[in-house]
Amino acid sequence: MIDYHTLFTITYGMYIIGAGDRDHGNGFISNTVFQLTSEPPRFAASCNKDNYTGSLIEKHQHFSVSVLHQKAQTDILGTFGFKSGRDLNKLEGRNVKYGISGSPIILDDSIAYLECQVVEKIDMGTHWLFIGDLIDAQLLNSTEEAMSYAYYHQIKKGKAPKNAPTFIAKEKLVQTKETGDKAIYECSVCGDIYDNNQEDILFEDLPEDWTCPVCGAEKENFIKINN
Amino acid sequence: MIDYHTLFTITYGMYIIGAGDRDHGNGFISNTVFQLTSEPPRFAASCNKDNYTGSLIEKHQHFSVSVLHQKAQTDILGTFGFKSGRDLNKLEGRNVKYGISGSPIILDDSIAYLECQVVEKIDMGTHWLFIGDLIDAQLLNSTEEAMSYAYYHQIKKGKAPKNAPTFIAKEKLVQTKETGDKAIYECSVCGDIYDNNQEDILFEDLPEDWTCPVCGAEKENFIKINN
Repeated sequence: MIDYHTLFTITYGMYIIGAGDRDHGNGFISNTVFQLTSEPPRFAASCNKDNYTGSLIEKHQHFSVSVLHQKAQTDILGTFGFKSGRDLNKLEGRNVKYGISGSPIILDDSIAYLECQVVEKIDMGTHWLFIGDLIDAQLLNSTEEAMSYAYYHQIKKGKAPKNAPTFIAKEKLVQTKETGDKAIYECSVCGDIYDNNQEDILFEDLPEDWTCPVCGAEKENFIKINN
Repeated sequence: MIDYHTLFTITYGMYIIGAGDRDHGNGFISNTVFQLTSEPPRFAASCNKDNYTGSLIEKHQHFSVSVLHQKAQTDILGTFGFKSGRDLNKLEGRNVKYGISGSPIILDDSIAYLECQVVEKIDMGTHWLFIGDLIDAQLLNSTEEAMSYAYYHQIKKGKAPKNAPTFIAKEKLVQTKETGDKAIYECSVCGDIYDNNQEDILFEDLPEDWTCPVCGAEKENFIKINN
């Protein structure tokens, strides 16, 4: 039997995949970026077929990878991870550079970036796997450490959006979930859980200007989900 | 211009990909294992075409992923990472379990394992990208942390073998390499560098029973490579 908790032992980084141009650019948070070959330096990135950035990659045949560091702000993770570029311009107000491919690179909270030219698009069911050859790569900041997906989960208390390759439905994990008598709240924007049984401060005692550690939603967006 | 140091900011874990059966089983160290889709849970693993384990995956259409922890021993990393199953039986003397697919799972120094049934094999030039659907996944040890590729590099002083997707030839990194006047030694087995300019103890002062931190080769296998 598959124990879905096992999937949290697979190590990933945290990136913003960017695509498009100065007129229509977008990006989304991804943890599935990886090198496939050394000669040529070739990378793969998995992207949900519903993803707006995916349609921009298809159109322009390029994508950028901005490598996020551990101090990346909740606002960046919330906007690029849980909102759609169809509803808002995610790049507005950001420190953005347009690379040699034209793709937007998010300089805020990044330690490095890559740019790739698409050489293949592989159908993986719910997702496209974009294969790209490296055309540029630069370091931006050598003082911060790359954020790992485990860090995002454990320290930032982050979740995977529903369309991520590594999303795990709650019911798949519930079999071994520790339960308690105290109230459990869920963020109605991103699904983040605040469980009074596992926190030092009760949700009710959090200040009114407290915001969701994952997506930045206000406290009033949390709904109690147990009795 | 591509700065190859950038590639070290991409985050990976450290795994043993296993394949074969009780009669002919093998495994190799990989850092490129990742989830592609959530429904179904589908994974990808990159494997050099010359790799013996790759031929076993092709034959049996299954592979296992043993997730290594931070305290994984040099001996495991050296044998599975830098030796070929064509020359020795890597599984001999190991704590091995044969999974529901028949693939060998290396229990020594692992915190979890996955088993996948191959659904596609994609040609990536020097490497095959094996796509597999998850058929089993179990946690083995919840006290140790997964080893990241960065940890292997920085703490274990590990290198990528020449046939790894993330191998970077030394001449690609040399442009920004810090140099010094002291002797630099290279392991003739795995290519690990011991640079007196960057170490607290001179190579010459290391005890005679010191071994290569990457592959376990004896001190006498190190050769001075500068003047």
